Amino acid sequence: MANVTFDEVNVGDEIPKLEVTLDQMMLWMYAGASGDFNPIHVDKEFAEKVGLGGTIAHGLSSMARLGRCLTDWVGDPGALKRFKVRFASPARPGDTITFWGKVIDKSIEDGKNLVTLEVGANIGDGTVVLSKGEAVVEL
Amino acid sequence: MANVTFDEVNVGDEIPKLEVTLDQMMLWMYAGASGDFNPIHVDKEFAEKVGLGGTIAHGLSSMARLGRCLTDWVGDPGALKRFKVRFASPARPGDTITFWGKVIDKSIEDGKNLVTLEVGANIGDGTVVLSKGEAVVEL
Repeated sequence: MANVTFDEVNVGDEIPKLEVTLDQMMLWMYAGASGDFNPIHVDKEFAEKVGLGGTIAHGLSSMARLGRCLTDWVGDPGALKRFKVRFASPARPGDTITFWGKVIDKSIEDGKNLVTLEVGANIGDGTVVLSKGEAVVEL
Repeated sequence: MANVTFDEVNVGDEIPKLEVTLDQMMLWMYAGASGDFNPIHVDKEFAEKVGLGGTIAHGLSSMARLGRCLTDWVGDPGALKRFKVRFASPARPGDTITFWGKVIDKSIEDGKNLVTLEVGANIGDGTVVLSKGEAVVEL
């Protein structure tokens, strides 16, 4: 099911980037799916009032999209085994987020072919949304 | 905005568990919100045919619910700063997943009050869905 094989992956490889432009509808959809209806994500007026300058995206929705960037590359949604990020800055409706990954290690553990990637998410203006990200996929 | 203060949290504390019973509608909703419409999550017949015994939940949706267990406890969705898990076993419609967290460390870094928790998700029959989880929240 995978698009890539362990042998053809090399340390230093960059995986195809995923670009997503957020809109408020995506935040409402994610609220419905996750059950997290905190008004800072769904209510523009409230988010303005508490000083956020408008709604901000759920951090986990950015993490989910970063995960999709990885599984789109592998071609197998079950390949993602370990995943960590740091939530650096919020993303907002209108932002175009670029999700990226770079292979930093290959190893074989318990007969499993594991590839470790440095991963992250940025907005075009240089804002880092997800930092210190690391993911392990099994190929 | 937070429900808990740094001072009242102690190493060894367990946070309130979150229990979620999955149904197929939740998988379809998450597919819509995340853009991940892989048939193993949405098409029961396909998932049977490829030997999965039915659809399985998106791993990131379990991670999102574990994140919600943490932010419900803190009372501030912006408090979650770092988050990692290992995707151990899939969860399926009909499964009741228990999301849990236990405080393992408190520290002050750059003037920020940080609490580190061991976190995870299990199904009632003992299946571990998310293992080796760790989260850092700022209080």
